[in-house]
Amino acid sequence: MSASHRADEPAPAVDRIPSGTRDVLPDEMRELRAMTDRVREVFERHGYGEVYTPALEYEGTFARAAGPGGDVPWPGQSTAWRRPASAWPGARPAYRMFDEQGNVLVLRSDMTIPIARLVATRYPQAEPPLRFSYLAHAYRGVRPQRGQSREFLQAGVELIGAPAPGGTAEALNVLCAALGAAGLRTYRVGLGDASLYPALLEAVGAPIERRERILSELVEGNFVGLEGEIAELQLPDKDAELLLRVPRIRGGPEVLEGLSGALGDAVGGMRDVHALLAPEVAERIIFDLGLVRSLGYYTGAVFQVYDPAYGVPIGGGGRYDELLRSFGRHLPAVGFALHVERLHIALTGEERGRGPRIPR
Amino acid sequence: MSASHRADEPAPAVDRIPSGTRDVLPDEMRELRAMTDRVREVFERHGYGEVYTPALEYEGTFARAAGPGGDVPWPGQSTAWRRPASAWPGARPAYRMFDEQGNVLVLRSDMTIPIARLVATRYPQAEPPLRFSYLAHAYRGVRPQRGQSREFLQAGVELIGAPAPGGTAEALNVLCAALGAAGLRTYRVGLGDASLYPALLEAVGAPIERRERILSELVEGNFVGLEGEIAELQLPDKDAELLLRVPRIRGGPEVLEGLSGALGDAVGGMRDVHALLAPEVAERIIFDLGLVRSLGYYTGAVFQVYDPAYGVPIGGGGRYDELLRSFGRHLPAVGFALHVERLHIALTGEERGRGPRIPR
Repeated sequence: MSASHRADEPAPAVDRIPSGTRDVLPDEMRELRAMTDRVREVFERHGYGEVYTPALEYEGTFARAAGPGGDVPWPGQSTAWRRPASAWPGARPAYRMFDEQGNVLVLRSDMTIPIARLVATRYPQAEPPLRFSYLAHAYRGVRPQRGQSREFLQAGVELIGAPAPGGTAEALNVLCAALGAAGLRTYRVGLGDASLYPALLEAVGAPIERRERILSELVEGNFVGLEGEIAELQLPDKDAELLLRVPRIRGGPEVLEGLSGALGDAVGGMRDVHALLAPEVAERIIFDLGLVRSLGYYTGAVFQVYDPAYGVPIGGGGRYDELLRSFGRHLPAVGFALHVERLHIALTGEERGRGPRIPR
Repeated sequence: MSASHRADEPAPAVDRIPSGTRDVLPDEMRELRAMTDRVREVFERHGYGEVYTPALEYEGTFARAAGPGGDVPWPGQSTAWRRPASAWPGARPAYRMFDEQGNVLVLRSDMTIPIARLVATRYPQAEPPLRFSYLAHAYRGVRPQRGQSREFLQAGVELIGAPAPGGTAEALNVLCAALGAAGLRTYRVGLGDASLYPALLEAVGAPIERRERILSELVEGNFVGLEGEIAELQLPDKDAELLLRVPRIRGGPEVLEGLSGALGDAVGGMRDVHALLAPEVAERIIFDLGLVRSLGYYTGAVFQVYDPAYGVPIGGGGRYDELLRSFGRHLPAVGFALHVERLHIALTGEERGRGPRIPR
């Protein structure tokens, strides 16, 4: 964060808007409203009451989600989950401000952490499961020329107090009902498990201090970088080969056959979720053992929506069974968020007949 | 803006939210959505297409609205309008951040300035009048214990390129149609003129450097402070009495009778607007010569919505015939914003039968 505009760059024209933000004009806005109205209607029909939380939160709320002790694992937590104190569980808020008393405020980087706070403070005694939905903007930092969104509208749900596999299956069923109501037809849902690769690293004895970087390469989908990181571990060939092969496993239920050992728990969990899905949802699923989402609070199943009409994920989510603990109400949870603008682009692409190519 | 939490104040609990912000839970959210859906429908029906602009803008966009030259009056502008260079035309954005290049970003403090920017950049050639609506949050600084909103949802319209009195009358007609659709029954609309008191100060020869403070007292509704400021001017009794009497004039069309001289233009303009209103709108109007809204960009008619079920204004607006000039497209304009949460409180109050007391 530098204190003033750098002298070697042109000052932004005052009639421009920050990169990664946009003006939405009436024709598009009408389509977005129609789409989000249908999605919100699905959320309400499934019992997910809409909430709104402030765009400005104390920085401590987002930092707290890292859990007490920072780099100390929580009780019962595998050391594979140990994070450096500097790591933030969610997307680290990119915008910091001060209130009148000098407290640090941040612009929310997602809605999951605010809703975890809301559950702990406004529903401390309520009988789980609790179901919430939202339609709200989130804010993140952007890197130049990446086409990233500084501000983006999310439509999502959080299901609090419903453990795997039932809660996960419910979230996936609601996800597909919402996408169907929006009008999307040719999409697929990748299903992985956030605990799978950490368990694998643990099983092969990868040093704890190297795991963070290895997972970062996987999040970025950088297999060349992953190969380099793994080579440096100087593992037996069999183990190194396993670390490279597993994240490439992707396909129907048949790809899970014969996977056991360190993979057993995660793979068994994925099978259990799949068995509980509505048939029209189950057929959308692509098992993806390399799926690692960038938000650090995921503990189990993770999923991501793809559409052949559009090259980037339209949304995703997963289980975060430890996050609520840091707000004082330890409940298992799962949720997802749709990136509304991307969903709209995919829909428009489908409607123009660019689909349907079914991805494998 | 201090750099860290002050040592003599307790640090905020991490499960709290900043003062002036709130969590909206499902039951209330359902009512707010139903209400804003009806209001948006009225805006669309009257031809006001909904737009969304980024919550984050360059600070220069909000500063630019002050006009070129800062304390130099614009061409054709009365010196009564001269503002110090430090003054901002709208609510000065309270939250400043930096982007990755060190540019200063602010959280929007209203939607009128962003829509002025949008008109100039996205509709540089479009034939006026242009009609836009919005449903969006705005952000302002708060003073302790005042019950002010740090974040608040606004529903409003901007009518660009329609001069007084016709454009003003259209805005007032749409305002009342929206309030009616929301379900509000016993409200009144105060109508004043932002140029009236400055013209009066000009006519009595009040020193330019004192006018800002006098207007501030009026904005605050502080008549004791106003009396003190006026006494210090050491004007002839007749003039001092006029400056104190005029802002108390409030009532039906009869209160405008016999007002002329420095008041002539503004009073004539108010009469012209009133004559163009739909009958069910005209009967809601209370002429209010002391009505001065806090946003500095208003140049003519200003108005404010009151409901007997609730003690604070529910919304308001006015003419800003000079603001678009600073974005390079000089068009007269008028708009209003409803404070959605206050509208909901007033509605709930009315429905509980606390009304109807009709204010005078």
